[in-house]
Amino acid sequence: MQKQGNAIGIFDSGLGGLTILRSVRSLLPKENIIYFGDTARVPYGSKSKETVTSYSLQIAEFLQSRKVKLILIACNTASALALEAVRAASSAPVLGVIAPGAKCAAAASKNKKVAVLATEATVKSKAYPKHLARADKKIKTAQYACPLFVPIIEEGLLDDKLTALVIERYLKPVKKLKADTIILGCTHYPVIKDAIAKTLGGKVQLVDSAEEIAKEAKELLAKNNLLKKTGPGKTQMFVSDDPKRFAAMAVNIIGGKKPKVKQVRL
Amino acid sequence: MQKQGNAIGIFDSGLGGLTILRSVRSLLPKENIIYFGDTARVPYGSKSKETVTSYSLQIAEFLQSRKVKLILIACNTASALALEAVRAASSAPVLGVIAPGAKCAAAASKNKKVAVLATEATVKSKAYPKHLARADKKIKTAQYACPLFVPIIEEGLLDDKLTALVIERYLKPVKKLKADTIILGCTHYPVIKDAIAKTLGGKVQLVDSAEEIAKEAKELLAKNNLLKKTGPGKTQMFVSDDPKRFAAMAVNIIGGKKPKVKQVRL
Repeated sequence: MQKQGNAIGIFDSGLGGLTILRSVRSLLPKENIIYFGDTARVPYGSKSKETVTSYSLQIAEFLQSRKVKLILIACNTASALALEAVRAASSAPVLGVIAPGAKCAAAASKNKKVAVLATEATVKSKAYPKHLARADKKIKTAQYACPLFVPIIEEGLLDDKLTALVIERYLKPVKKLKADTIILGCTHYPVIKDAIAKTLGGKVQLVDSAEEIAKEAKELLAKNNLLKKTGPGKTQMFVSDDPKRFAAMAVNIIGGKKPKVKQVRL
Repeated sequence: MQKQGNAIGIFDSGLGGLTILRSVRSLLPKENIIYFGDTARVPYGSKSKETVTSYSLQIAEFLQSRKVKLILIACNTASALALEAVRAASSAPVLGVIAPGAKCAAAASKNKKVAVLATEATVKSKAYPKHLARADKKIKTAQYACPLFVPIIEEGLLDDKLTALVIERYLKPVKKLKADTIILGCTHYPVIKDAIAKTLGGKVQLVDSAEEIAKEAKELLAKNNLLKKTGPGKTQMFVSDDPKRFAAMAVNIIGGKKPKVKQVRL
């Protein structure tokens, strides 16, 4: 490993990755964090591998110019489509959210049936089924693209008749599979975790990758003797579009007072 | 006016502008058309003026490199936020969809109450109220951002319980205003025109800008002696993301066989 800087870089297509920032902060409170949200080009979930890879590489380059010691790809779509490319181009180690989420779900499932809710691009990539099979060959997997979840969450319709109707529709095939474990394969989805759990009637485990990737980040830093010894850590936030809009929405996810956010054109 | 090429350039954030391509083709069948859909960065409706302007200028530059004689901004958000900037940077004349839509609605309204359904960014720009007031000072205008319409349309839920519920919700304040005319201020919305009309009970006129901008384009070309004399015209399509996905979806709007679409990185 080459000389590393002292911050953890986290990036996402927009806001959703803040759920991972929150987990990392909670597990590693001494670490400095640099967050990048690609709000000028969000969403990634309906775009091609080529495009998502090109955007991810630009962001990784920006994070490396700030001397990060580790890059976390918080976006499921970018993790599914661009992890290998970002790894090949980065001197810092790179973790995505797919492998930790799949590992956690494989360990949690008792009836060996796991459903994956994700974006169109993540579903198409088959990244989750591949990683689930790698974790346990016996696991039966089914995937469902849920393109309306992100806009509904971004509209703030968390406890709403409309949201219930959309969840009911997307979960119909999940219920049919009788999966005992569901991967929330998009960083936005944990925001409606309670509503999803309610529709499923409480008998199903919902896995999101935020805690898992934070644990893997801690292990990796410890193994490489890169953990920061003194705290508290500082967080810097960057976005590609309007920083004010992002700051206002970020409070809903990470709490506290409105963060300072800077705009960077990539 | 400087030396002009022989095609009409049309651009949109993605697919929706094909409703305008369709109108232009129908009114001006001899003209060559170059269409550009910015599918790698779609949508524009939730993004900032700065970002939408920067994207629009890049696209206008691309169209000018193909020697267009006229640029039509098919996207309402780009028309609302970037028309002046694109005009200032282009040697070809530039038309947006806001002014024609507002003119048409002002002429159509009898009770002088006009509602505008549009994206968040278009609503925020106040472009429609400004143009409606310019057309007729007596007109009362109310605007409503409808962020779920685009994802619902892109999911193809045209005749669906969910769509009816979303329309019902967005139209509640419109009904309260008792507007007799509604501007469909986003090129996607005409796709659910029938469902909107059904919810309103048939007493309201729905205005979309596609036919109006085609008429303005014809007038402008005629005035400048730039109309193409012989046909039939050819259409070339370019997108910034996966051309196959776009071609498959384009058929739903313009009919016929699957068009050839090329990818251009801006």
